[in-house]
Amino acid sequence: MTQQRFWSPQIRQLSAYTPGEQPQQDDWIKLNTNESPYPPSALALQRMAEQCDARLRLYPDPRSTTLRDAIAAQFALQPQQVFVGNGSDEVLAIAFMALLRHGQPVLVPDVSYSFYPVYCALYGIECQAVPLDGDLHVQVTDYAQPNGGIVLPNPNAPTGLALPLSEVRQLLAGNPDSVVLLDEAYVDFGAESAASLVNEFPQLLVVQTLSKSRALAGLRVGFALGHPDLIEALNTVKDSFNSYPLDRVAQAGAQAALEDRAHFDAITQRIVASRAWLAAELQALGFSGPVSSSNFLFVTHPRRDAAQLQQALRERKILVRHFKQARIANYLRITVGSQPECEALVRALQDILGQPGQSPSHSSTP
Amino acid sequence: MTQQRFWSPQIRQLSAYTPGEQPQQDDWIKLNTNESPYPPSALALQRMAEQCDARLRLYPDPRSTTLRDAIAAQFALQPQQVFVGNGSDEVLAIAFMALLRHGQPVLVPDVSYSFYPVYCALYGIECQAVPLDGDLHVQVTDYAQPNGGIVLPNPNAPTGLALPLSEVRQLLAGNPDSVVLLDEAYVDFGAESAASLVNEFPQLLVVQTLSKSRALAGLRVGFALGHPDLIEALNTVKDSFNSYPLDRVAQAGAQAALEDRAHFDAITQRIVASRAWLAAELQALGFSGPVSSSNFLFVTHPRRDAAQLQQALRERKILVRHFKQARIANYLRITVGSQPECEALVRALQDILGQPGQSPSHSSTP
Repeated sequence: MTQQRFWSPQIRQLSAYTPGEQPQQDDWIKLNTNESPYPPSALALQRMAEQCDARLRLYPDPRSTTLRDAIAAQFALQPQQVFVGNGSDEVLAIAFMALLRHGQPVLVPDVSYSFYPVYCALYGIECQAVPLDGDLHVQVTDYAQPNGGIVLPNPNAPTGLALPLSEVRQLLAGNPDSVVLLDEAYVDFGAESAASLVNEFPQLLVVQTLSKSRALAGLRVGFALGHPDLIEALNTVKDSFNSYPLDRVAQAGAQAALEDRAHFDAITQRIVASRAWLAAELQALGFSGPVSSSNFLFVTHPRRDAAQLQQALRERKILVRHFKQARIANYLRITVGSQPECEALVRALQDILGQPGQSPSHSSTP
Repeated sequence: MTQQRFWSPQIRQLSAYTPGEQPQQDDWIKLNTNESPYPPSALALQRMAEQCDARLRLYPDPRSTTLRDAIAAQFALQPQQVFVGNGSDEVLAIAFMALLRHGQPVLVPDVSYSFYPVYCALYGIECQAVPLDGDLHVQVTDYAQPNGGIVLPNPNAPTGLALPLSEVRQLLAGNPDSVVLLDEAYVDFGAESAASLVNEFPQLLVVQTLSKSRALAGLRVGFALGHPDLIEALNTVKDSFNSYPLDRVAQAGAQAALEDRAHFDAITQRIVASRAWLAAELQALGFSGPVSSSNFLFVTHPRRDAAQLQQALRERKILVRHFKQARIANYLRITVGSQPECEALVRALQDILGQPGQSPSHSSTP
């Protein structure tokens, strides 16, 4: 007998976000969830291991003071302009509740991170999709309409397209009365961060994550940058939900990962180089798609069905992401893996497409 | 200029939970947040350190499968009867949203965990305080009234008093149509868990934490046990909020901590022994209070003001908890520390109370 009668009524309407598949075996080439192909900072791993001791009997610092200090220093901001959470998903969820619930619709691109409408449903916020233009670009002028907030990923996902900072500034100047949340999960792979605009625009909230460019998806740390009053609202919701979202290991590891600039620079450069190589190879195979400023490519093939391609890759133990959504149903989102993973992907696609004539041009870099 | 105009209107009404002070220096005797005085399982620490490697580049298992399997095995339940979250505070918050929002008041004891009314405020749930009896006991018959759910800590905090399982059963039998949430954060120190009733009562949700008896407050892991349909509601909210609440280190550490029964038994027994010793010493100093089944004592002194006692202890670098709340404003909640910490507390109280005549009777155990 079903016991759904115990559910809060709103729960019945929720259609939860489905994260990309996480196979627990090691024999997959995982190009489906935009993880880093490279390990995290060795310094971060060491600092985390050092935290695995008797101090874990004690609660962590509920304010993550030293981590927030490190983030503030990195962006030349004050600690009270920094909020940290259990992955940027939690930071986003808290921001939707704390800052975007105003009885007017929140504007999001129609093709974007599919968690945004889920947050809206969770908190009873109307979510209004603003269509990308015909080339899948965000046109900031399309957001000049009454709203309870604007949420833009920059670069956008799954398109990979970046907004230049001049257009972000134009958007902020034209929208002074509601919060503009910029989700910069992928910013380090080639876009310009709006963190430099935080002191200028009190309605700006910038959200970043350590899951992508810091190779720490498994640690669950994200953060937000904004005016101290925006951060205070986030803290009020956090402290009404869970006083200690970041464990001791995560606080120490995140801080060290942010301090280890050399490792960060090295792995982002390798991914950017592989992205260029992979984009050229995919183009040679007949794929096209927007120019990526992220750690993934968003591509379509004029003669092949994307869902079938995904399945054919899956049979070869390669996972890529496909979204059954209007406008993009014939696209694949492919994470830029390590160079050998990119090469394996190209070989598999040559095989699937029946273009096995030449092996992919090996790149000596990165 | 204040930027509170950007806050979602509901946020203005929130009065967040204030966690106990977490000094970042080591020279305090911390008896204020009910942490364990003993380190976590060595096996758990080892398993956590082993997770601090390149695998952290990958997202964790969003379902925490192996951890849930371990919890299920421990309680002779099925994995689909188990939910895990980022500390039991997150589990409770999700449960309030998923299962307790029914347009009728949620019943909680008037003297209880002060986070419950905060969750209610966060989710717009009416919270109705049900008075404890004159001896600070929960009387289950007082909960026989229309409700959208019942939330009881067992043992209760900050009183430390436990409900026998027979009374829990009586409560469940009399309240078949709304969820009964039993918060068993402290159950391992002397109360009977209602986990054994989960298969019998589909409206029962049992919440536990690894922060207390498993000495892992710094790791942030809690869990819920209940009917698969209740767990499904919790998963729906989780997956609408944050797909991956538990990082890889936390999943591995929690699983090992649950498997290491020998360590768990050893440290809980030591705390129970120190509790008996400390209770007798406090009684000798003139304190009285309920019989504790938890890892803290709740005591009052007939001739001394509790807030002043707290301050006097603080000046001696000993932290205890005081709640400015009707009925209990003259009580202190004192965590049972290690035996040397308990002895230091007693010496300090002798000094403060002007009863320095004899040193506390040293206990050879534990």
